[in-house]
Amino acid sequence: MSGNSKIVVIGAGAFGTALAAVAAARTNANVILLARREETAAECRRTGRNEPALPGISLPAGLQFSANKTVLIDADIVLFAMPSQEHRAAARSYGAVIGAGATIVTCAKGMEQSTGRLLTDVLDEELPGHRIAVLSGPGFAADIAKGLPTAMVIAASDMTLAKDLAAALSGPTFRLYPSTDRIGVQLGGALKNVLAIACGIVEGAGLGDSARAALISRGLAEMSRFVTARGGEADTVRGLSGLGDLVLTATSHQSRNLRFGIALGRNGRANGSGELVEGAFAASVAARVAGELGVEMPITQAVAAIIDGRLDVRTALEQLMSRPITQE
Amino acid sequence: MSGNSKIVVIGAGAFGTALAAVAAARTNANVILLARREETAAECRRTGRNEPALPGISLPAGLQFSANKTVLIDADIVLFAMPSQEHRAAARSYGAVIGAGATIVTCAKGMEQSTGRLLTDVLDEELPGHRIAVLSGPGFAADIAKGLPTAMVIAASDMTLAKDLAAALSGPTFRLYPSTDRIGVQLGGALKNVLAIACGIVEGAGLGDSARAALISRGLAEMSRFVTARGGEADTVRGLSGLGDLVLTATSHQSRNLRFGIALGRNGRANGSGELVEGAFAASVAARVAGELGVEMPITQAVAAIIDGRLDVRTALEQLMSRPITQE
Repeated sequence: MSGNSKIVVIGAGAFGTALAAVAAARTNANVILLARREETAAECRRTGRNEPALPGISLPAGLQFSANKTVLIDADIVLFAMPSQEHRAAARSYGAVIGAGATIVTCAKGMEQSTGRLLTDVLDEELPGHRIAVLSGPGFAADIAKGLPTAMVIAASDMTLAKDLAAALSGPTFRLYPSTDRIGVQLGGALKNVLAIACGIVEGAGLGDSARAALISRGLAEMSRFVTARGGEADTVRGLSGLGDLVLTATSHQSRNLRFGIALGRNGRANGSGELVEGAFAASVAARVAGELGVEMPITQAVAAIIDGRLDVRTALEQLMSRPITQE
Repeated sequence: MSGNSKIVVIGAGAFGTALAAVAAARTNANVILLARREETAAECRRTGRNEPALPGISLPAGLQFSANKTVLIDADIVLFAMPSQEHRAAARSYGAVIGAGATIVTCAKGMEQSTGRLLTDVLDEELPGHRIAVLSGPGFAADIAKGLPTAMVIAASDMTLAKDLAAALSGPTFRLYPSTDRIGVQLGGALKNVLAIACGIVEGAGLGDSARAALISRGLAEMSRFVTARGGEADTVRGLSGLGDLVLTATSHQSRNLRFGIALGRNGRANGSGELVEGAFAASVAARVAGELGVEMPITQAVAAIIDGRLDVRTALEQLMSRPITQE
């Protein structure tokens, strides 16, 4: 893996396109954005943009576009940039043509709902023999693609690989910090979406900025308990991929999870309609697993119960506020 | 110290009034808000409000108002609710009439600029023999006074005292968590203002939400290094009075420190005019002390240098972005 690794990004959504653009802006880059449909690839080639994904943003001249999965055959690094729940199907669909030496990087933030598994575990199962890494942290696709300063994390099972990937995928304004805590990095990305929904509920219910700040603080402690119970590191939770991403998602209205929560807070309860966001899946998985592990997660449990319709917002807030005061 | 402790709050600004209002709403409360001028006290008595401090908010009927410092003679708990730089003068002015058994609580977030001392140390010096506690954390005065849910921290040298103070000053929607880490709680309150200025600079310079999230995350690590070097606990930094307050101040435009930073970011450099905020004092103190202790605080150093006019915003940001990538 060196200066001219061949990098293929599967998934021409906003985030995949942004990551491909950063990598392709480097000297001697060999980067391909692999779209599902040939029309998407052709339109990107013709316009030098991916207008539906990143409106108004010009992509680097060196970035290549394809819808032909055989480009994966000699790839050194393959980025999975599709939603969490599509990871297993994508691994099955593309796995046969991914060369044996390729390192796979998941760029989604979630867990597989049906099994409760981490995405690196899903990829380990479906693509045995490959090295599996994870990219996560606080970065909006539009910020990354516009060249605004962004810092994220890349975690692999060994530090040398993490550093190599960081070097291959970073750019002048896009900095990847290497880590070996794949569990902590992934859970931070998944659980911050749950807490963003909680912050949205608080905002939608008109409870004020102070309440939101307290929720973020107590929520981070809860996230930390879960991550350490699952074998991740508490320090990771306090870093870019935990705290940093939580702050970004919970305070910016660009976040779909936050907006989902605001609607819940305004309505007072789930109304059983509407599309679920990543954090809604993560809430149900985390609440279930936390129960099995005996980890106390009152905020996550409340969010899961509200989404399921088992609890209304007012009762949930009263329960959270009336918990006994203990030492911080 | 029990259900009907006599509580006197010195300082009829927004925060002091809000704290007095919460305590006075309790059954059998005996709470006096001590204003500097008799006209302020009289106007509060007449209207049941402190309109200049908390516009439109009705105060509890049980709250008493005075401008006569002799009310301090038999006080059990005395809250210092004036700006950091006025603490020493206030201690000298009121100290002679504060009864020997009273516990003093500082409610300001800062350090004494001329000496670099913590406010509890200033009070220890000026009011020897008294027990000194500190109240800090994420709570806007208006949120507290309106009864919106708020969680803050009260730290004393022993846990029994901290718990007693928490019980005496909390209300149904205002929860105080006890702590014994006076250093960590105070430094969190002071340093978050520095980071709020940094977040303002990033916002004012148009660098985006992702950059701000990274800054908060890296800034918290920096705050943690300083707190532990000064004898505080890293866990405190990650709690309500560190992280929680940082998130509140750095993401809400109600914050004066954030607005101060935004102006710096827009101008590109300090223009040598305008009133300084708490964080500007804290930046210069922390940068100086960090240098003496050998603690690495690149963000704080940059903020202090920008405020001093030694560095422009663009150069500062380039220096921060070009720091070598290390493990998180």
